[in-house]
Amino acid sequence: MKESVVQAILGQSVFGGGLGFPLMVVHRDALEHNVATMAAFARGHGMELAPHVKTHMSAEIAARQLAAGAWGLTVATPRQAQVARGFGADRLMVANQVVDPAGLAWAAGELARDPAFEFLSFVDSQAGVDILARAAGSRPFRVLVELGREGGRAGCRTVDELVRVAAYTQRVSGVELAGVAGYEGGLATAQEVRKYLGSLQEALEYVRVRDPILSVGGSEWFDVIGRELVATQARILLRSGAYVTHDDGFYREHTPFNRIEGELRPALEVWAHVLSTPEPGLAIVGMGKRDAPYDDGLPIPRRDGVTVLRMQDQHAYVRADGLVPGELLAFGISHPCTAFDKWRVLPLVDPDYRVVGTISTNF
Amino acid sequence: MKESVVQAILGQSVFGGGLGFPLMVVHRDALEHNVATMAAFARGHGMELAPHVKTHMSAEIAARQLAAGAWGLTVATPRQAQVARGFGADRLMVANQVVDPAGLAWAAGELARDPAFEFLSFVDSQAGVDILARAAGSRPFRVLVELGREGGRAGCRTVDELVRVAAYTQRVSGVELAGVAGYEGGLATAQEVRKYLGSLQEALEYVRVRDPILSVGGSEWFDVIGRELVATQARILLRSGAYVTHDDGFYREHTPFNRIEGELRPALEVWAHVLSTPEPGLAIVGMGKRDAPYDDGLPIPRRDGVTVLRMQDQHAYVRADGLVPGELLAFGISHPCTAFDKWRVLPLVDPDYRVVGTISTNF
Repeated sequence: MKESVVQAILGQSVFGGGLGFPLMVVHRDALEHNVATMAAFARGHGMELAPHVKTHMSAEIAARQLAAGAWGLTVATPRQAQVARGFGADRLMVANQVVDPAGLAWAAGELARDPAFEFLSFVDSQAGVDILARAAGSRPFRVLVELGREGGRAGCRTVDELVRVAAYTQRVSGVELAGVAGYEGGLATAQEVRKYLGSLQEALEYVRVRDPILSVGGSEWFDVIGRELVATQARILLRSGAYVTHDDGFYREHTPFNRIEGELRPALEVWAHVLSTPEPGLAIVGMGKRDAPYDDGLPIPRRDGVTVLRMQDQHAYVRADGLVPGELLAFGISHPCTAFDKWRVLPLVDPDYRVVGTISTNF
Repeated sequence: MKESVVQAILGQSVFGGGLGFPLMVVHRDALEHNVATMAAFARGHGMELAPHVKTHMSAEIAARQLAAGAWGLTVATPRQAQVARGFGADRLMVANQVVDPAGLAWAAGELARDPAFEFLSFVDSQAGVDILARAAGSRPFRVLVELGREGGRAGCRTVDELVRVAAYTQRVSGVELAGVAGYEGGLATAQEVRKYLGSLQEALEYVRVRDPILSVGGSEWFDVIGRELVATQARILLRSGAYVTHDDGFYREHTPFNRIEGELRPALEVWAHVLSTPEPGLAIVGMGKRDAPYDDGLPIPRRDGVTVLRMQDQHAYVRADGLVPGELLAFGISHPCTAFDKWRVLPLVDPDYRVVGTISTNF
């Protein structure tokens, strides 16, 4: 779908016939509520928010996050960094090891071109530091040494190893140590999170830099982070991403706002037609893997008595009684990251489903 | 990634530094081999090929399929029909029930505007026929009545039911019966496919129209289809789609060319960097759910001793020894449909990985 198709019905209802279905919409009020809520949460806990824009890769949403006071933007890859730079961010954090030559060449060039540009990325090995050092230009690459955990993704497995990589970073020219990073998202309990945050703070004591940065991420444990890190002297950069649209699945279950005061609101919704009711109790709906996430829970029908059984490329098998072909159904989603990447443009709607703007994505 | 980025390195290697990674490439020779192979197969078995372009949604690939003699193009939704019409097809088949008002308004308008335009879609209920009838313009909607099966997707569950829907179609103005359609893709054995094709032929005997069409689809059973339907008087429209790029996973296992002479070649390949080797035997690779399919088998490493364990949004966990950060790895994919929809532009490459063109997608 092209942006001009959505622009053409600004002010009109998405159900007025100007747009085809399936259609994913973004609820403006929920989006703006979530942006404001997390900005206030970070401020209230002495943290800075570096929202992870890999979730949406949308200029319109990034602009709202920056306007709400975000430190800068977090991305997952150098390709995303280039795009997010175009969103108007002067500070970018790639929450990842960066080894891609084209991406590093771009970052080195951008650092040289613009003295105000800040660029952070993660390292977890001497080999990774060497790659950055070789690609550096007139200004060094500022890095956070990543602490991981056994069985986890990237990151040094122990504080000792992290300290060695940090020390190596300080001996190599072209790379500058800026602090420590971690990711608590995959942890199962608050106790594990507290222990992990303790290791990050321990690591920070060994990493002797001025104004150190400590970055943690995710949309599941920021309540624990806020409590545990409140007295830390480092600048805390919180990389939450999925909070911005929230969802009706995984994050509805896992948001810290189930434990603390406040709430996030689901901002994404997919509407699709019943195409066929070939057997009693079975409906085939025109919403498939191209339209809605299926990797972390199937779409969540907004109507009682309706269940999504499975999805194919362009279809969902739905269990329900009494549906008829041509009927429109609404679904919440689970996992915002794999919702946005299925769409190039989305209508931003008011509570009456009138189009009040466009949300374009840049994957 | 923008098309101009790929265009800028025409004639150069994708490994020359002009493109970032991860990167999915399309091998031109394999693509053109597959297009020619299936065109010849269909011709040799008295069938016409209506390639399902939902797989790729690419003008450049559709043009090759049309140039090789395709009857027209198959799509899954009216939105895809509009896009495929822009690919230069005068004949479109929506292999699906169409109920979307915006899509039907477009199709009715296009039929009225261009007397040479042919548009086919499926019906499986009186309610579906009524929806088409209400939306019809100056020319009727030509439909194929779909035969499904218990536990399957859409389609009438019995030949009796199909005959009733077909008869209803012939009584309603604005809709014109053109034949019968089915989908054998989900069936497990050649025996089941033969039985199902027999039901389709039986249905065709009851559907009294001039020059009837019989459409079947998929890239798993066209050998059985070719043998079983060779004496059928109807025009056979074969809707295979995934054949065009083939793969190293599901379709490598399931292609009829495992049973008959000939072959398809995998045309898609993803290249990505090792970002981190945080534990012995574990590598974190910069290729995630945004870059390669994960719904019907994980990416297939082209190097022995390397196994993809799992994928997250932007990362793959890979089991392998001896990898180092910065190393590039190649992966074949499983399930072409969920590979193309992750990319807006792909470099078309020669055997030396020089860029010889662009493949743009339109999802």
